[in-house]
Amino acid sequence: MQIQFLCVGKMREKWLQVGFAEYKKRLSRFATISVLEVADSPDHFNPAVAVAKEAELLRKRLPKSGFKVALDLHGKAFSSLEFAKQLSDWQIKGGGKITFVIAGSNGYEQDFLDLMDERISLSPLTFPHQLTRLILAEQIFRGFKILNNERYHK
Amino acid sequence: MQIQFLCVGKMREKWLQVGFAEYKKRLSRFATISVLEVADSPDHFNPAVAVAKEAELLRKRLPKSGFKVALDLHGKAFSSLEFAKQLSDWQIKGGGKITFVIAGSNGYEQDFLDLMDERISLSPLTFPHQLTRLILAEQIFRGFKILNNERYHK
Repeated sequence: MQIQFLCVGKMREKWLQVGFAEYKKRLSRFATISVLEVADSPDHFNPAVAVAKEAELLRKRLPKSGFKVALDLHGKAFSSLEFAKQLSDWQIKGGGKITFVIAGSNGYEQDFLDLMDERISLSPLTFPHQLTRLILAEQIFRGFKILNNERYHK
Repeated sequence: MQIQFLCVGKMREKWLQVGFAEYKKRLSRFATISVLEVADSPDHFNPAVAVAKEAELLRKRLPKSGFKVALDLHGKAFSSLEFAKQLSDWQIKGGGKITFVIAGSNGYEQDFLDLMDERISLSPLTFPHQLTRLILAEQIFRGFKILNNERYHK
């Protein structure tokens, strides 16, 4: 089982890096986790230009195989139990490989979104995209625990 | 403007403490933030006993005045923009004081929930309650930025 996080921008804050590393370590029992970061566009870029530039970089790094899931405010919402079931389903459909894509603050280019197999939302609230990466890692860990019938503290 | 976090259990992980402290610092421009933690019950407690014990401790620390909001998986969901508007509304209704209550892994006692003015949900997904505290702090900060028409990075 391989899980890849394909993200726009770096995780700059140390505490987020530590938190994400913690979940990555916990997840290593269930899957091989990798993180690919592509450059986010400078603030002074026109948003449409920034999105196109970021999409170009994302496309270059997007794997040809596996199931592709974009994190998107307008994507499908799940309970943790439903998310666990999806995880199992995506794993099968992707031949053991899932790529989660997390866009930057400018969002996605429509053409890039069309390459995705699924679009999911963690919340109707907007979260910082670096925090999204951490929340997703926790939720994947929770999903594996649920699928393995293991106890997990909320 | 006073905002209180009333929580069951301690924030044990260092990276979460650092992240929460960061948002607390950022929020200090908009409000006085305080955190009150009551003891969570030991794991070996029967869940019903644990919930009753935690509710008793929460009731003792619950302020008499101000607007009271419980974080609850079955509460109302909002977009960040709607949440900002609610924040403004709760501030007025609470005479400048809002208390957010975050239960432990056992959830809430119904009698305690009945003391609340509102029940809100951050996501249909279940998050660890320590991470919930951090996500809420970020969202309150985002809310104030929205209310002040300030730019905010996603």
